[in-house]
Amino acid sequence: MQDIVIDAPSMRSVIHCGSGTFARYAPLIQGNGIFVITDSNVHRLYSDLIENTFAGATVHVIKAGEASKNYNVLLGILRGMISAGLTRSSVVVALGGGVVGDIAGLAAALYMRGIKIVQIPTTLLSQVDSSVGGKTAIDLDGVKNIVGAFYQPEEVIVDPLFLATLPRRELRCGLGEVVKYGGLDAGIYDSLVKNSDRLFSEEFAEEITPACIRHKAKVVTCDERDVGGARKTLNLGHTTGHAFELYYKRRSHGEYVLIGTYYELYIACKLGVTDASFADDFRALIKKVTGRIPSFGDAANAALVAKYDKKNKVQSQISLIVPKERGVCEEIVLPIEQYAALIGECAAYLKGEKA
Amino acid sequence: MQDIVIDAPSMRSVIHCGSGTFARYAPLIQGNGIFVITDSNVHRLYSDLIENTFAGATVHVIKAGEASKNYNVLLGILRGMISAGLTRSSVVVALGGGVVGDIAGLAAALYMRGIKIVQIPTTLLSQVDSSVGGKTAIDLDGVKNIVGAFYQPEEVIVDPLFLATLPRRELRCGLGEVVKYGGLDAGIYDSLVKNSDRLFSEEFAEEITPACIRHKAKVVTCDERDVGGARKTLNLGHTTGHAFELYYKRRSHGEYVLIGTYYELYIACKLGVTDASFADDFRALIKKVTGRIPSFGDAANAALVAKYDKKNKVQSQISLIVPKERGVCEEIVLPIEQYAALIGECAAYLKGEKA
Repeated sequence: MQDIVIDAPSMRSVIHCGSGTFARYAPLIQGNGIFVITDSNVHRLYSDLIENTFAGATVHVIKAGEASKNYNVLLGILRGMISAGLTRSSVVVALGGGVVGDIAGLAAALYMRGIKIVQIPTTLLSQVDSSVGGKTAIDLDGVKNIVGAFYQPEEVIVDPLFLATLPRRELRCGLGEVVKYGGLDAGIYDSLVKNSDRLFSEEFAEEITPACIRHKAKVVTCDERDVGGARKTLNLGHTTGHAFELYYKRRSHGEYVLIGTYYELYIACKLGVTDASFADDFRALIKKVTGRIPSFGDAANAALVAKYDKKNKVQSQISLIVPKERGVCEEIVLPIEQYAALIGECAAYLKGEKA
Repeated sequence: MQDIVIDAPSMRSVIHCGSGTFARYAPLIQGNGIFVITDSNVHRLYSDLIENTFAGATVHVIKAGEASKNYNVLLGILRGMISAGLTRSSVVVALGGGVVGDIAGLAAALYMRGIKIVQIPTTLLSQVDSSVGGKTAIDLDGVKNIVGAFYQPEEVIVDPLFLATLPRRELRCGLGEVVKYGGLDAGIYDSLVKNSDRLFSEEFAEEITPACIRHKAKVVTCDERDVGGARKTLNLGHTTGHAFELYYKRRSHGEYVLIGTYYELYIACKLGVTDASFADDFRALIKKVTGRIPSFGDAANAALVAKYDKKNKVQSQISLIVPKERGVCEEIVLPIEQYAALIGECAAYLKGEKA
């Protein structure tokens, strides 16, 4: 067990990491009323654990899946909080994956202008990424994370206990974000390369998680509100990944991030930012997680969705964060037409490779 | 013209105060896209001014009135912001009274997790109070300001220019908050007493506004998120005022605050917190603004609504901020049953007085 601390300008956030942290810290959560938000999948698997740990709490269950990240579900949570009579000294517990964490975080940020929240992420993806750092959001009208807030959880409890019940698809999704950290941190990159044959093992997930959180904590501490550039690097692969995710909606977020990174590496090589041999190594790592990279038929059109990305200062210019060399990334800004054309070119190249 | 600065932990907020500030500062507002939010009343009176000042801006008009502080109107604004293609470097301008400021502030806080907002309050109430300090909110299921955020405007432009078109009822509402400041600040109290025969004049409004803002700026700077107690004092009279406002919904917010203060002074005297002669002076001041104080038939039941007040740590205990002596206030905490009974007693007393 270890604690990682984020000393963000808005508030301090403590992340309890490792086996046994749930049993140790969850029963200590105190407040004038505890409101547990979870989803139907997690509730099915862990309702006993929830009941035994948070006796007397109100448990609010939302439908599992990305589609729940909408304002109707948010309103339902806020109404549940009013009905439960929560006050400013109550506590929200978000027990679930990224969707639960994002929407519960936003509900806690908004209720009475902010009450305490503890994040207990149950997927690899939310453990290494979304539960840490205070980004909360819902989608609106097909635009991802367009409505949200920066709001730090007072505590995060990251226990590998929950990974045992995680489907392989979810593990792959989490590994997508882990590989992203490989593009930002030389230590994580080396560890990925060294363990490339056991990436899907629970042991590797448990080993690599604190390293990812430590990297993110460092970045969030110095750029909490994502204005200084440091936090933007965490969006490596996400510009194209998000665009594909919104356009195709079939795979998981983490997979789209990896696929996005793959496509963006093509652009980075074309523009001379990334050396071809490093790009090849990185792409090999991506394939270890996702297998074959899809050659989307409509890739150039899908890429146009990226104009809504929050990283862009203006909608006509697309910002990409790409791996440059071992542990170093770089931002590329290019006109949307050029960007969409290059994404289309990469898809055509992949199609040729497959044929 | 003068500038008052709030150096809040989350960000610096500059308030430009005085005649001519609109003409001087509004045209300087810059951003990659300006999105003006106003209401139907203000738009009817000032559409030319808006068009001439913010050429090329998107203007989003909401229906005038408190009922607009709901999530449907908020969603409409957020959708308008998406349609207008706003990015992180766009600016929201809130031009209107408290409702416009509160809901536009929340929309700006939520869009892409926060974009720049400039508040241009057009009522006395919003000039002396709600436009300053970063409290934003909407109501939900009859609970006032239950969903919101702390989010500082980068600038506030407080120009008496708009007061010329303000109905007397709106002026009375603003004076309600000014009298509240009189309970917190000896200078403002003296000024109110000295000018008690010209409280409704535009000149007095213009004179007293900067003093009120200066008081609020001081409080917000040291207790931005309303946790240290200092900011709580700004709720003087509001516990009972809000309860009556939600229950009866007939008068304006500022009037209910004054009526609430009147009722709470009754409790404060009963509990020996406030000296009877000071309470009499303060009540005389209140009557100068509101005229006769209503003896609500159902006051004790109306008071029960106060259990939802955010100041209460638990719903069974009611927190009141009452004027204690010249420029000094005090918090009283009492059980809800006792509180409701005393409010009922005051109503009965008022009824007897009237008979």
